[in-house]
Amino acid sequence: MCTCHPFPAPGAKADLEEGTVLTPRFGADGLITVVTTDSDTGDLLMVAHMNAEAFAKTIETGEAWYWSRSRSELWHKGATSGQIQTVVEMRIDCDQDALWLKVKVAGDGGCCHTGRRSCFYRKVETSEGKAGLAFV
Amino acid sequence: MCTCHPFPAPGAKADLEEGTVLTPRFGADGLITVVTTDSDTGDLLMVAHMNAEAFAKTIETGEAWYWSRSRSELWHKGATSGQIQTVVEMRIDCDQDALWLKVKVAGDGGCCHTGRRSCFYRKVETSEGKAGLAFV
Repeated sequence: MCTCHPFPAPGAKADLEEGTVLTPRFGADGLITVVTTDSDTGDLLMVAHMNAEAFAKTIETGEAWYWSRSRSELWHKGATSGQIQTVVEMRIDCDQDALWLKVKVAGDGGCCHTGRRSCFYRKVETSEGKAGLAFV
Repeated sequence: MCTCHPFPAPGAKADLEEGTVLTPRFGADGLITVVTTDSDTGDLLMVAHMNAEAFAKTIETGEAWYWSRSRSELWHKGATSGQIQTVVEMRIDCDQDALWLKVKVAGDGGCCHTGRRSCFYRKVETSEGKAGLAFV
């Protein structure tokens, strides 16, 4: 056990990739990348980050907790908006440095702070060699 | 224009979130997070990163280029494996610091370096208060 968080330290490559022990690899900033999708539709809702405490609280409570990089604080998603995310399934990638949360969103079903369901509401389009954004 | 890459510098919050100008926000490490899904099934395939050059090459070629953090080099996904990712749609999130690529994978259709289709082949499961991983 690391003294800073409740997860065991990552082991050798084979254990990391083919093992069944959860040993998340937090970056130099103490964070792991999280991809959150809607468990019903599969739509990508948001990309965010967790520190070890947020990850542990997500496992413990079954609701998504993140680390807000802009506010530098632990963030229980939906605590003020009502848009609580209940975790239906959580996956980790091959080298255990990215998480995938499939969630059900409470409240009005929104996720993005702009009021939209998903943060990914614009696509990159190229016209005459120049890339711009278009709302979808 | 920034002198280091071909994208305009990010503007004010309103432009960033509600504008149609592509102004990606690369982190202090020069990278932006990329979520890649299968354009047919919607399955999450991988989470990776791009620097400005990789992003520009992806736009220019219509194939996914990443920045390999482990090898510290530009990475044309599939150049050696044949698992080229053709971009069907590319989206950016509200604050323009994360990308979503919907791709068609060539070759054997794989994506993960372990040989699997997706990097997310294990789920986090909790038993008697202890979290572990289970293959899906």
